[in-house]
Amino acid sequence: MNPNRSYRKSNLPPNAKRVFAGAIFDVYQWEQELYDGSHATFERLVRPDTVVVFPVLPDGTIILVEDSQPGRDTILTAPAGRVEEGETPEGAALRELLEETGYRPERLEEFYTRTPAEKIDWMVHVFIGKGCVKIAEPVLDPGERIKEHPIAFEELVRLTIEGAYPYDECANPVLRAALDPAGLSELRMRFLS
Amino acid sequence: MNPNRSYRKSNLPPNAKRVFAGAIFDVYQWEQELYDGSHATFERLVRPDTVVVFPVLPDGTIILVEDSQPGRDTILTAPAGRVEEGETPEGAALRELLEETGYRPERLEEFYTRTPAEKIDWMVHVFIGKGCVKIAEPVLDPGERIKEHPIAFEELVRLTIEGAYPYDECANPVLRAALDPAGLSELRMRFLS
Repeated sequence: MNPNRSYRKSNLPPNAKRVFAGAIFDVYQWEQELYDGSHATFERLVRPDTVVVFPVLPDGTIILVEDSQPGRDTILTAPAGRVEEGETPEGAALRELLEETGYRPERLEEFYTRTPAEKIDWMVHVFIGKGCVKIAEPVLDPGERIKEHPIAFEELVRLTIEGAYPYDECANPVLRAALDPAGLSELRMRFLS
Repeated sequence: MNPNRSYRKSNLPPNAKRVFAGAIFDVYQWEQELYDGSHATFERLVRPDTVVVFPVLPDGTIILVEDSQPGRDTILTAPAGRVEEGETPEGAALRELLEETGYRPERLEEFYTRTPAEKIDWMVHVFIGKGCVKIAEPVLDPGERIKEHPIAFEELVRLTIEGAYPYDECANPVLRAALDPAGLSELRMRFLS
């Protein structure tokens, strides 16, 4: 039994059946009664959740990574990966951070979560890793190439505002915070305190 | 042949094979060579693109909708739907707007596009419909209930900043615009000119 997938299956109606099991995505379908009493086949996907960590060094430097994968352009991102079976999001975040960068944070704080797509049981858990210390060399799998890209908090905000930071991992909370000086100051404390 | 799906299939590598055809999602897999010469099964989904339209009346009122679907909470959103086989995004936007609200715009302008998920061939095309006039009653399918929710431009910005507007359909461009008065003024012109 896959505890992770069965947990997330709770977003499906009880009569949903798995009709395909993929490498990442499982497909579920069910017959849904519509408002006029007729029925239609509804479809929903289940995939492992994603974790993202913004690692922060004791001096306040934030470690982004230049991440290359086969068949995709190199992107600037925060260390990230999938929650494996039986893992908690926190456990997955610590494991991915260690594997990709060799850093271990003194403490891990929840930043925010998002659900990227309505028809997919899929959560993205975003963390801030405070007081990161290098305790190992990165251990990359053969489908990854990773290079550290250290930046200051102010540059993270600037990249996000310019849209140069490629993904939505932190766009909305950073943009909302940047709308007023108090919000930006509060966000700065969340990363650097 | 499905011209829409075959068009989007171009994001897949040539050796990708369809391993499942769903009601919405098709699943493709291929053997991907990794950096060390080993291989792994990679997976990518293809689904119909989505269109979203912000309809604007001649007096500047923006028509959002309270959208109910079976098995989901009612949400506040812009009229939206799927691009059908053989349709252009513009054609789908006009059709969905007419079906859901009965409005026809004098002109349709591209607002922006986004790709919500890296492993899914799926684009969301967002339009602004200018000078909308009611030319018909809504024709809803049995899986929809829709109620008009007219708001002013300023309220759209406020809802987006507060996060009360539930989806990311317009969050990034609106938040970015709201960061400075010139940007907000320019966005206002895009909706109301």
